[in-house]
Amino acid sequence: MIIDCHGHFTTAPKALAAWREQQIKAFGEGVRVSPDELEITDDEIRAAIENGQLKLQTERGTDLSVFSPGAGKMAHHYGDERTSLDWSRVANDLIARVCGLFPDRFVGACQLPQSPGDALETSVRNSVEELERCVEELGFVGCLLNPDPSDGYYQAPPLTDKVYYPIYEKMVELDVPAMIHVAMSRNDALQGTCAHYLAGDTAAFMQLCTSDLFKDFPELRLVIPHGGGAVPYHWGRYRGFMQDKGLPPLEEAVLGNVFFDTCVYHRRGLELLLDVIPAENVLFASEMIGAVRGVDPETGRHFDDVKFLLDGIDMTDEDRAAVYGGNALRVFGRLKSRRVTE
Amino acid sequence: MIIDCHGHFTTAPKALAAWREQQIKAFGEGVRVSPDELEITDDEIRAAIENGQLKLQTERGTDLSVFSPGAGKMAHHYGDERTSLDWSRVANDLIARVCGLFPDRFVGACQLPQSPGDALETSVRNSVEELERCVEELGFVGCLLNPDPSDGYYQAPPLTDKVYYPIYEKMVELDVPAMIHVAMSRNDALQGTCAHYLAGDTAAFMQLCTSDLFKDFPELRLVIPHGGGAVPYHWGRYRGFMQDKGLPPLEEAVLGNVFFDTCVYHRRGLELLLDVIPAENVLFASEMIGAVRGVDPETGRHFDDVKFLLDGIDMTDEDRAAVYGGNALRVFGRLKSRRVTE
Repeated sequence: MIIDCHGHFTTAPKALAAWREQQIKAFGEGVRVSPDELEITDDEIRAAIENGQLKLQTERGTDLSVFSPGAGKMAHHYGDERTSLDWSRVANDLIARVCGLFPDRFVGACQLPQSPGDALETSVRNSVEELERCVEELGFVGCLLNPDPSDGYYQAPPLTDKVYYPIYEKMVELDVPAMIHVAMSRNDALQGTCAHYLAGDTAAFMQLCTSDLFKDFPELRLVIPHGGGAVPYHWGRYRGFMQDKGLPPLEEAVLGNVFFDTCVYHRRGLELLLDVIPAENVLFASEMIGAVRGVDPETGRHFDDVKFLLDGIDMTDEDRAAVYGGNALRVFGRLKSRRVTE
Repeated sequence: MIIDCHGHFTTAPKALAAWREQQIKAFGEGVRVSPDELEITDDEIRAAIENGQLKLQTERGTDLSVFSPGAGKMAHHYGDERTSLDWSRVANDLIARVCGLFPDRFVGACQLPQSPGDALETSVRNSVEELERCVEELGFVGCLLNPDPSDGYYQAPPLTDKVYYPIYEKMVELDVPAMIHVAMSRNDALQGTCAHYLAGDTAAFMQLCTSDLFKDFPELRLVIPHGGGAVPYHWGRYRGFMQDKGLPPLEEAVLGNVFFDTCVYHRRGLELLLDVIPAENVLFASEMIGAVRGVDPETGRHFDDVKFLLDGIDMTDEDRAAVYGGNALRVFGRLKSRRVTE
């Protein structure tokens, strides 16, 4: 089974974005919009998925996507903690409906109702509750954790700060991993998908390298998307840094808990990822439908058709099986039991 | 001639750091410390260089370094625009003394007296004057331009904002390039050398991709250090982004003006850089003595002995000559005339 561990519902029916716009506008006017005001029919969801992600899954030969709300659209800086909570519930409930309509093809990962600044601590408590709801009631298998809820200004403490520990406790208890994924950038100096995303990945990796988080949570599992940002390309820099600081080697310090996805949109980059990072730490993913949507004239395939690129790269059968699905079944612990019991 | 386009005086005599510390402390107390209070002898400079960068140049077989003040230590967020101006003059004057003592081995690139926030515009005017002084009076051939003078919070406009145009006008007039290089990070969420540095490189590249800067300054030349941050590893993402947005291909949009250095501390990363980026856009550099100082147990050589790594990579003689020095002579226009006239 080929599992894409990183898919977003970027093609959601327009009513979702309209509700969110209304919610943000209303907050500015001191009122709330009820989640009940959102109306989307099953047919609208089916159309969005069947003409989008499902179509591409079939064309590309992948079986199952770990599916989450559009990451950029999480936009945690808007409003207050209640804004984020309402929005997360709305976005996650929609993902649950997708998974309910296409149970063999999509399994949910939730966004968390994070907020920056003074609301951070409350938003962590809300995140714990929403995570529990999504996993226990909606059958989700993971979550997205935003290292920069200020959306482009890096104004939150590192993810290794104890303020986040309640989330990790709940993740371990529920046996679900998080994908570390920033949301939008509201900073003109930091473009979203090609700068902020990769900067967030890289920053988070260094936070993990220089902390005791995995001593405190030896079972915690974190996925760094977009091929790990800049990390594999600069693997020597990180190795040297750890050694200079008298820290354990990266294998020991982080690779028991940290995994990289394969959202790298050219063959040479993927080759480097697979050469540098042990196969057991790499999870197939295409960020589909996501950051880059066009066809690469050099290959005649979509830039984000990562399966096509990986199929052309030499790997042992064992490594390929691990990258394409085996690792995902291990990292997303609930995925395994879910599939087995079906 | 092998030219290392990215070296920092990180081994400066301790009196420099003491002066700077005093300057910052005094600013907090509402007073200024005069640059004249710094006392460093030629012998101290000789000792610092002969036991540091010069020794490594000789051991590794490189000929000339484009030499600038310690980048992290630029720390533009401290004090006000006068603080930055005094500090830049002090730091740049010291570089000029190194170049005067070892004229065959070091040529200067200056730090600019940038400042964040309300001081930005004034600091740009000061930067223009300091750049002119360093190039015309001290014989420097380039400068460092910090895309984040807030030092870790990305609170300045993009480098493509017109507020920076006076610097570009002066650079073109003087025929000198800038290396886009952040300073320290004062943000716990963003470690310096392995997160903020690479995030800054990546953010700057995207600023350039999405602007008309090179239409306005077709002669402008910018070097993105640390192998271009995350950029070459994600070259497919950038190609796809440009195409999705209806922008020209990267070759046309930026590669006439943007260059990447080779500060990537493992062979696989350097191979990717050289496979993906045209050789004419790659400049040899080692960031020496810099971010990573130890010996790689896998090679028995220093992590930052990039020449050793590059020597082991297959390249045409023509490409090697370009990467090792030819490109630097082209990008640092004044380097060529300087060497020719000697």
